[in-house]
Amino acid sequence: MTEPTLGGLGEHGLIAALRGRFPVTPVVLLGPGDDAAVVAAPDGRVVASTDLLVEGRHFRRDWSSAVEVGRKAAAQNLADIVAMGARPTALLVGLGAPADLPVAWALDLADGLAAECAVVGATVVGGDVVAADRVTVAVTALGDLEGRTPVTRSGAQPGDVVALAGRLGWSAAGLAVLGRGFRSPRVLADAHRVPEPPYAAGTAAALAGATAMIDVSDGLVQDAGHLAAASGVVLSLRTTALEIGAPVAEAAAAFNVDPLGWVLTGGEDHALLATFPSVAAVPDGFAIVGEVLAGEPAVLVDGSAYSGTGGFDHYRG
Amino acid sequence: MTEPTLGGLGEHGLIAALRGRFPVTPVVLLGPGDDAAVVAAPDGRVVASTDLLVEGRHFRRDWSSAVEVGRKAAAQNLADIVAMGARPTALLVGLGAPADLPVAWALDLADGLAAECAVVGATVVGGDVVAADRVTVAVTALGDLEGRTPVTRSGAQPGDVVALAGRLGWSAAGLAVLGRGFRSPRVLADAHRVPEPPYAAGTAAALAGATAMIDVSDGLVQDAGHLAAASGVVLSLRTTALEIGAPVAEAAAAFNVDPLGWVLTGGEDHALLATFPSVAAVPDGFAIVGEVLAGEPAVLVDGSAYSGTGGFDHYRG
Repeated sequence: MTEPTLGGLGEHGLIAALRGRFPVTPVVLLGPGDDAAVVAAPDGRVVASTDLLVEGRHFRRDWSSAVEVGRKAAAQNLADIVAMGARPTALLVGLGAPADLPVAWALDLADGLAAECAVVGATVVGGDVVAADRVTVAVTALGDLEGRTPVTRSGAQPGDVVALAGRLGWSAAGLAVLGRGFRSPRVLADAHRVPEPPYAAGTAAALAGATAMIDVSDGLVQDAGHLAAASGVVLSLRTTALEIGAPVAEAAAAFNVDPLGWVLTGGEDHALLATFPSVAAVPDGFAIVGEVLAGEPAVLVDGSAYSGTGGFDHYRG
Repeated sequence: MTEPTLGGLGEHGLIAALRGRFPVTPVVLLGPGDDAAVVAAPDGRVVASTDLLVEGRHFRRDWSSAVEVGRKAAAQNLADIVAMGARPTALLVGLGAPADLPVAWALDLADGLAAECAVVGATVVGGDVVAADRVTVAVTALGDLEGRTPVTRSGAQPGDVVALAGRLGWSAAGLAVLGRGFRSPRVLADAHRVPEPPYAAGTAAALAGATAMIDVSDGLVQDAGHLAAASGVVLSLRTTALEIGAPVAEAAAAFNVDPLGWVLTGGEDHALLATFPSVAAVPDGFAIVGEVLAGEPAVLVDGSAYSGTGGFDHYRG
């Protein structure tokens, strides 16, 4: 018995199979199945962000299950919404896939998207399915600011403290593990397959008066640099304040590399880096990792410009 | 002198070059450059739709300029918003592209997106750039219902009249022209490269009390079938009421095919098919092409089930 494929089921058969896999939440005024969805935007604004994931670049089907790819695709977009201090409400998902893709893979992808959305109370409200040589997942996330001012990258002031929520270096360590052909430590491989953004910390930071915030997707030094540039400030980071997870340290020792390299430049953990006007303002869930200084925009690591690679560029790898 | 490529410029260089090519409209509360954009949703709801375009499937770089690909990518998404009776406000665009893609191509794509958005007063508010083997354009469009009830596919009632705005068969005729290696009739090739959705007709239909509406993207018979299925009705179409454009008729004669085949099953013109409670309700810009009957959901063409191919399926071509 051959496994059912998208080519056998057809576009409209797949769409029919996908529909109904996503719960209808109170913000969904009109869900999948029409020309467009209608989503509540109670405070008269909508936060929106989009990301594209391409097989072989952002995930490998032999390393990650479809559920994991779905969770990761959702997580990286939900993290962008959270990094504005907003509550994610809905995703729209475009799927490009070859005709020989098993139907089960597409359905599992949907289940992964739904599962990650459920963590924050969001859901999938619409999408598109097209034929493509490589599996391609295009996700757009929408969010609700609930009356709050968006926390941008550009509000950091000299004198602010820099704080971090979530973990760093885990995905990079997991990539190193998988890249060397290992499947364990499982906890690192899993961290690469599915990030765990500190979703609740985004709203907490906004409510606590964060002056700036960014989703650390490309690496701490690089994303700190984006925040520094947008705010016109220097971000001074202390490596002693950066937690190095035990599995990260152990993998680094096994591979004879400096774990701090992964922590400073590894992408895809989706930690949140934020600035606050005072130490007292920093909410639970954030660790203070540095301070904001006046000066030409730059990132200092232990007082010096960081000399390692600055993080991930999609064209410079 | 070699032409600058995305690989040479890098992801962040390209993003910097793209920023500023999109005007800031009054709905843009926070534009590109942060983790997410913030767009006004004045009536407390946002309409959202997404589409994926893949090189070799939805466009060819040897057939269409980058400006044309950008216009088409925008148009097909804007048409989905308009088909709900909403006003398009913003696009988010994910671009996957190989490292050897000329920078000029990416900038022209942006200009095409901006130009098509400008037709309806929308703009691009955010995006993503990643490396991919094939040029891939993922577009999400947002829209504002301006207080109106969305016009879905599911509200058609027996006794309603069926009306059409916009042209049909032009893109299919243009594809046939280009597919045979011709560049003319130019007006048909252009119609395939850049559709001309009847944007104003969407709002007009909503204001006139349309009971149902759909963007005709996959072919009239197929999309009429979607509307019939969603509404639980029969759509009876009269071919004598369907306009066959003179260039379409001429190309069909030259290729010795029935032009009505293109009109009934050709996709990508993005006409609007709508139902209205009475002949008197049909607004300017719409031509009456049939009526809604009670019965098991179906599409009748001149009183019979249509025996030709039903339109485009991304996996069945």
